Amino acid sequence: MTTALPPTPDYDAWPIEAELETVSFTPRRVTVCWSDGRESRYHGIWLRENAADETTVNPATRERILDLSTLSGWPEVVGAEIDDAGALCVDFVTEDRRLRFHPGWLRAHDYDNAADPGAPLVPVTTWQGGAEEGPDSLDATGLLDTEAGDEAEEAILAPALESVLGKGLVRLRGLPTDPGSLEVIARRIGPVRPTNFGLLFNVKAKPDPDSNAYTSIALPPHVDLPTREYQPGLQMLHCLENSVDGGEAVMLDGFAVAEALHERDPEAFATLTRVRWCYANTAKTTDYVWFSPMIRLDERGELLEVRIADFLRGPLQTAFEDVEPAYEALMTLQRMLHEPEFAIRFTYRPGDLVIFDNRRLLHARDAFEGASGHRWLQGCYMERDEIRSRYRMVQRARRQRRVTAEA
Amino acid sequence: MTTALPPTPDYDAWPIEAELETVSFTPRRVTVCWSDGRESRYHGIWLRENAADETTVNPATRERILDLSTLSGWPEVVGAEIDDAGALCVDFVTEDRRLRFHPGWLRAHDYDNAADPGAPLVPVTTWQGGAEEGPDSLDATGLLDTEAGDEAEEAILAPALESVLGKGLVRLRGLPTDPGSLEVIARRIGPVRPTNFGLLFNVKAKPDPDSNAYTSIALPPHVDLPTREYQPGLQMLHCLENSVDGGEAVMLDGFAVAEALHERDPEAFATLTRVRWCYANTAKTTDYVWFSPMIRLDERGELLEVRIADFLRGPLQTAFEDVEPAYEALMTLQRMLHEPEFAIRFTYRPGDLVIFDNRRLLHARDAFEGASGHRWLQGCYMERDEIRSRYRMVQRARRQRRVTAEA
Repeated sequence: MTTALPPTPDYDAWPIEAELETVSFTPRRVTVCWSDGRESRYHGIWLRENAADETTVNPATRERILDLSTLSGWPEVVGAEIDDAGALCVDFVTEDRRLRFHPGWLRAHDYDNAADPGAPLVPVTTWQGGAEEGPDSLDATGLLDTEAGDEAEEAILAPALESVLGKGLVRLRGLPTDPGSLEVIARRIGPVRPTNFGLLFNVKAKPDPDSNAYTSIALPPHVDLPTREYQPGLQMLHCLENSVDGGEAVMLDGFAVAEALHERDPEAFATLTRVRWCYANTAKTTDYVWFSPMIRLDERGELLEVRIADFLRGPLQTAFEDVEPAYEALMTLQRMLHEPEFAIRFTYRPGDLVIFDNRRLLHARDAFEGASGHRWLQGCYMERDEIRSRYRMVQRARRQRRVTAEA
Repeated sequence: MTTALPPTPDYDAWPIEAELETVSFTPRRVTVCWSDGRESRYHGIWLRENAADETTVNPATRERILDLSTLSGWPEVVGAEIDDAGALCVDFVTEDRRLRFHPGWLRAHDYDNAADPGAPLVPVTTWQGGAEEGPDSLDATGLLDTEAGDEAEEAILAPALESVLGKGLVRLRGLPTDPGSLEVIARRIGPVRPTNFGLLFNVKAKPDPDSNAYTSIALPPHVDLPTREYQPGLQMLHCLENSVDGGEAVMLDGFAVAEALHERDPEAFATLTRVRWCYANTAKTTDYVWFSPMIRLDERGELLEVRIADFLRGPLQTAFEDVEPAYEALMTLQRMLHEPEFAIRFTYRPGDLVIFDNRRLLHARDAFEGASGHRWLQGCYMERDEIRSRYRMVQRARRQRRVTAEA
């Protein structure tokens, strides 16, 4: 009698890329060989924490209930074998039960052979404007007629999500132009993040503006809301009307600018990753202030975000001796932002929706002549997490189809 | 004839703490002496960028329109004096206009004498549970009868905001218990941040739970949503009903735990600030994953956030040789989380609202007996930015009253 494969500790689907063939162990480590010749090592403690049985994971929620520190000691391995179903079975000294591991799940989480554990979901590729006609454009006609989660929706969304994750932006075309439809479109990806400007904001010239965005003046390259501890990860701008003269949209890859600065003037780059600028938006009823370097790197030294927005900087508050170097570095950066080769320029058409990474891309616009027609964009913010979650669901659905086809 | 004081580059109010008495300058620097003897140095370029005239700031929005790199050269100082109104006047070589600076604003932004430029709005004080009876408790009866922004609202909110900024939490008592009233209460501070769990979420045992929070089992100390690139900065839990046996609330200051870990086991602390854990919430329709150290420091080496939530960690994906040290450090931390002296314990009363910093505080709850009564909390998330903005508005209102009283 062949037993079934054990559950995995998640709701995901894991095709069997290769079979487990042999296993050996020491008290702290289990080593397996796969049918394609790969060898993978797993630490005993890692296996113990990632078991999927009901002492480790709540079967109702698939969330962990095990607290490793409550075990009577380090969970040493005293036995390991591959069972009839092809699962890895491990016996731990401190426990009276054998734990079983799904080979598809084990293979997918083979940290021993991962080139870059915890790498981004889609590789980040920086770009300069000269090589680009405009953002990647995708026909999204009919998006709202698809069912959420079906393959027709996936066919439109998957390449869009990939472009945003990899290049930082995408342009969807052929969408409705009804005011407010952005909310319905955005929800196909995830929940919108409201701010003091509302759930959706209207970019058009208006009387008594509380932001330069709501005038017809040119806006220099900037990210939105750098005045927040965490500026929104994504921005969506949806064109409802555009018949003005001027108002051309400009976008730059802030990561490409940062990389070029690093190459041309490493000292200015270092200064901008170190000195904390003041970002401020003092309005009549709100007062947002945050201090941050202009270019931020993550724990791995990779670019995490840029905070560039001259009109949202308050007075620099830093050590006296840092002030002049900071301004020198700032001006070097500002001059680069004027170089046309970094920028792509395009004109919004009604029904266009540009989705872009607001912690990476800089957007700008030329001045426009308000009397020459109407220009109305609706915008909203969202977190990068939502794009990643949605894209992971696409990947899960694809794996699920493979698992089903193999069964 | 005495001229009026010049505008400031913001919407704020700046009382005159001291008068400007003397001024001297070099091409790159202006030095002033105040009536109380303080001397302050300002860089010429800093003054130039922070001028409030209409070549620098859009008067309609008070946002900067100057791009320093478009000046014809470094803005050197060629003249400086104090005028009849008590304003600092500076002449720059590249410009045909004299720029004037408001002395109250200048004094408030005296980076030369700031002990810690860009310091937190309220000093952060860590605490251990042993010394605390429970969260700071404030009577908020009548909050919803105040006018937004009036002094009665300020009297309730200001100490609450201070507690959250300084100690990471506060308990408001005497609030309504109508379902949904949390949204109205929260909006007194700022916009709510919705997630895949909705704008408000209901913490009660429910069938087919998608989170351990929605069961009656005990929850270990945790932050919410560490599976996001930026876990929500604030959480609010509002008690509508509580008549069960058990279900006591537990809270710990994650920063105090991190500091204690740093003291007791610096190597474990260093490991937890370096190795990136996998945080994962794979549900049926969403799949949030983020990789991050468990303890994060900011550019200044100050504690920025903790990401502790055993039930929201996915399989660690890191360099092979980091796995055992990471688990050793994790278990050291887990054992500390069991020490009763870190925790405060309290029972929610209907009408209580606990607001806490979700990037700092850990919350937990005991198991409860679902059949013994009802336990219903409504919760929501918000950003720390909103608390800071609201508190800055309180400070601005107080300054405004001083300015008005002095006039």
